[in-house]
Amino acid sequence: MTLADSVNSPPEEHLRQHLTEIIELLDKQKLEEAIVNQQEMPHHDLVETLMLKRHQVALKQKLDGLHSADIAYILESLPVDQRLALWNLVESDLDGQILLDVSDAVRETLISSMDKSELLSATEQLDTDEIADLAPDLPEDVMQELLQNLNDQSRQRLQSVLAFEEDSVASLMDFGMVTIRADTTLGVVLRYLRQRGELPEHTDKLFVVDENNVLKGVLSLKRLVTNNAEQSVASVMAHDVVYFRLDDDAEEAARAFERYDLLSAPVVDELHQLQGRLGIDAIVDLIRRKSDEERLAEAGLREDEDIFSSVWKSAQNRWVWLGINLVTAFASTRVIGLFEDTIIKIVALASLMPIVAGIGGNTGNQTSILIVRSLALGLISASNIRRLIIKEIAIGLLNGIVWGSVLGLLAYWLYSSIDLGMVMAGATLLNLLVAALTGLMIPLIRHRMGLDPAIGTSVLLTAMTDGMGFFIFLGLAKLFLDTPH
Amino acid sequence: MTLADSVNSPPEEHLRQHLTEIIELLDKQKLEEAIVNQQEMPHHDLVETLMLKRHQVALKQKLDGLHSADIAYILESLPVDQRLALWNLVESDLDGQILLDVSDAVRETLISSMDKSELLSATEQLDTDEIADLAPDLPEDVMQELLQNLNDQSRQRLQSVLAFEEDSVASLMDFGMVTIRADTTLGVVLRYLRQRGELPEHTDKLFVVDENNVLKGVLSLKRLVTNNAEQSVASVMAHDVVYFRLDDDAEEAARAFERYDLLSAPVVDELHQLQGRLGIDAIVDLIRRKSDEERLAEAGLREDEDIFSSVWKSAQNRWVWLGINLVTAFASTRVIGLFEDTIIKIVALASLMPIVAGIGGNTGNQTSILIVRSLALGLISASNIRRLIIKEIAIGLLNGIVWGSVLGLLAYWLYSSIDLGMVMAGATLLNLLVAALTGLMIPLIRHRMGLDPAIGTSVLLTAMTDGMGFFIFLGLAKLFLDTPH
Repeated sequence: MTLADSVNSPPEEHLRQHLTEIIELLDKQKLEEAIVNQQEMPHHDLVETLMLKRHQVALKQKLDGLHSADIAYILESLPVDQRLALWNLVESDLDGQILLDVSDAVRETLISSMDKSELLSATEQLDTDEIADLAPDLPEDVMQELLQNLNDQSRQRLQSVLAFEEDSVASLMDFGMVTIRADTTLGVVLRYLRQRGELPEHTDKLFVVDENNVLKGVLSLKRLVTNNAEQSVASVMAHDVVYFRLDDDAEEAARAFERYDLLSAPVVDELHQLQGRLGIDAIVDLIRRKSDEERLAEAGLREDEDIFSSVWKSAQNRWVWLGINLVTAFASTRVIGLFEDTIIKIVALASLMPIVAGIGGNTGNQTSILIVRSLALGLISASNIRRLIIKEIAIGLLNGIVWGSVLGLLAYWLYSSIDLGMVMAGATLLNLLVAALTGLMIPLIRHRMGLDPAIGTSVLLTAMTDGMGFFIFLGLAKLFLDTPH
Repeated sequence: MTLADSVNSPPEEHLRQHLTEIIELLDKQKLEEAIVNQQEMPHHDLVETLMLKRHQVALKQKLDGLHSADIAYILESLPVDQRLALWNLVESDLDGQILLDVSDAVRETLISSMDKSELLSATEQLDTDEIADLAPDLPEDVMQELLQNLNDQSRQRLQSVLAFEEDSVASLMDFGMVTIRADTTLGVVLRYLRQRGELPEHTDKLFVVDENNVLKGVLSLKRLVTNNAEQSVASVMAHDVVYFRLDDDAEEAARAFERYDLLSAPVVDELHQLQGRLGIDAIVDLIRRKSDEERLAEAGLREDEDIFSSVWKSAQNRWVWLGINLVTAFASTRVIGLFEDTIIKIVALASLMPIVAGIGGNTGNQTSILIVRSLALGLISASNIRRLIIKEIAIGLLNGIVWGSVLGLLAYWLYSSIDLGMVMAGATLLNLLVAALTGLMIPLIRHRMGLDPAIGTSVLLTAMTDGMGFFIFLGLAKLFLDTPH
């Protein structure tokens, strides 16, 4: 909440209230549009048009008081028709910023409603790094014209950023950097800044470079204001600077930001020349985006969904995964078909087998999540991997003994058969060992192969623990229970 | 990587190399300790002790060059025995900072190896807000003595922070704030800062308060250095400030930080008096911690695990969930028991039923993840919930028709029975509708009840889709296939 606000509610409640009021206005407007269209009486036109205008004015007034990020939130919360109605009322000088603030899925709907000239005027107000963020969503012809309109430096920067991979430091950096020389005094720097006026957003330090633009150190604003004006930049600046290269991995950079509590850091090329700046705001966005992506991917969603996208589009987003799951489920249940004779004789197996498969999936999933997490934090290395494997197998064994006994007793209690109880216990023990091993090996092997260990692990794991669970349980049953008559 | 380093490798590789070298040194030291203990020859003592010392010196040298966060990372990557051996060699003035940097689980092992005086000297170097972060892990008697040793202001601050809930703004704030008055000039402020010398870490703005400590605005260092020294603070400071209250929800604050790209923000009490400062570093930690917690909770891990904690401890961390899952799996498979007669007659049902249950679980999970996410982003409100429900049911219906047909054809192809194919198709369609409804309602109801919608949703959901999947499929089979002879 801001000091300028007089309302005493927390910021989110505030926002939700704006949303409710805007929806009411949009609904009223729509209702009256419908009435106008129905009546078709020419002499009513003027009155109705005036009423429509009144709602529009009210909506515009509401929007004028809002931060671009708040408008982005409201647009995301609106169904597509209302979203586009409101989008048309937004001040066009906010368009670019709002396009940056909304989620990818919502951005698509907004951009598809804009013509070329609207898109050009929206993007013209943006910084080079911001245009780079929008680039994948902009139509080809708009990008071409945009590039032509830029000055040489900006065009070069934009093209070089676009040339790097999506998850490199270069793709996250901005150009909001202020450079100074080491041989001046703090007083001169202060005079220069005062002359310059505005500093780029989030400037917490100035970058010290030599005449070849080679990074020499950084001067934080903190040191600038706490040291005497006569001191030289060289004597006050930090030499021991954390910096990144253009092609460094963005997630490693994020971990460095967390580890060393950075607010911004310089980005250099292989000649050590300053190329850009990495800011904590881009890092926070990255952390949020990555954790979202992983959770969506784990549930089998290809990408983020606009909650109001069409049924057809949403269904497609979900189908790849459902198809894959169907294939693996089909494969693992084919194992059951091999033992149909045994099941007909001992039908209790049919109700018990999903439990053996299920508990295997659960324990395997626990192991794999911990391994994926440790890999992501860089905690697993050649030097400690053996101990980790031994530990997980030991837990699998312990789990197997404990839960095997529980399930064995349960089966005995249900069906009064000691043999069935023993088979249940043995199958659970073995399947929990399989689960521990696969939960461990799948992420480790994917990681070794250079693949993301988080994605796909749970499908492979479930297929394995289901198939093996059915096979071990029914196989043991066939061996020990299905005695020939 | 830092300019001071000459090695040209990315920061993480660098760290891993340190880790490998440290493990080698620890191994050598242990080996020689073992030799000394075996030989027990008194005249060898001196030589061996000297060799041991040599490794210790080498280890200490390695540690001295490292940032506290890097040492924390290395400690997390070491098995408990080596971790404690290294921990003993760490310079004691880094102890406090490292305890803050390591994960909760690892912190426990470190603290349990320290005696009272070590803990007191480690915590004495910390700021009040940092002590508050450690407080839950410190033994009672250490906390008591620590409180006594603090000065009045710090003790009061510490006690007030500890009185707030874990996920309030108060629990995240620090006291690294510099306050100034509105009626001075920027020149006076600069002189004051130069006199003061050091500024608290991450200071990007100064807080402007009146004589009653009531927040009046903020002066960013950016504005301080770009405006003329003669201007007054009042004319340059920002009045339109985003601030938080002590008991605001920390996650809402995190979203505000992201939305408005904040680096720090003032925290006030109900009288609008300045109480502390919320920094982006605490927010980044919170975002990371929350996303970790949710993912661990979804996989049924009570808390973060030290990857080298004992087998026994790890097993306990995983058992609550396994127990719950077992109960629900047991309940849902009891449904199968009701239809044993039908299964004996049509044994194909045994291999097909897990597929119907499984695809229901998958689709329900996709729906619930999207709903949980939209709830977390605050995108769902009374005004749009109806459209959302209609959309998800429509997707469930579409999915049901598509996947029902696929599975129906598959069953027909496998068992050459049109009736079995129809039952499979119908059961899939119905179970996918059940899945869409439960995936939608469970998080919404939990949210309405004030519970975390992420946690527990997947257990409830799977229990529902499994149980209903078995019931619908076997029930339809009994009705349409199990014709009396």
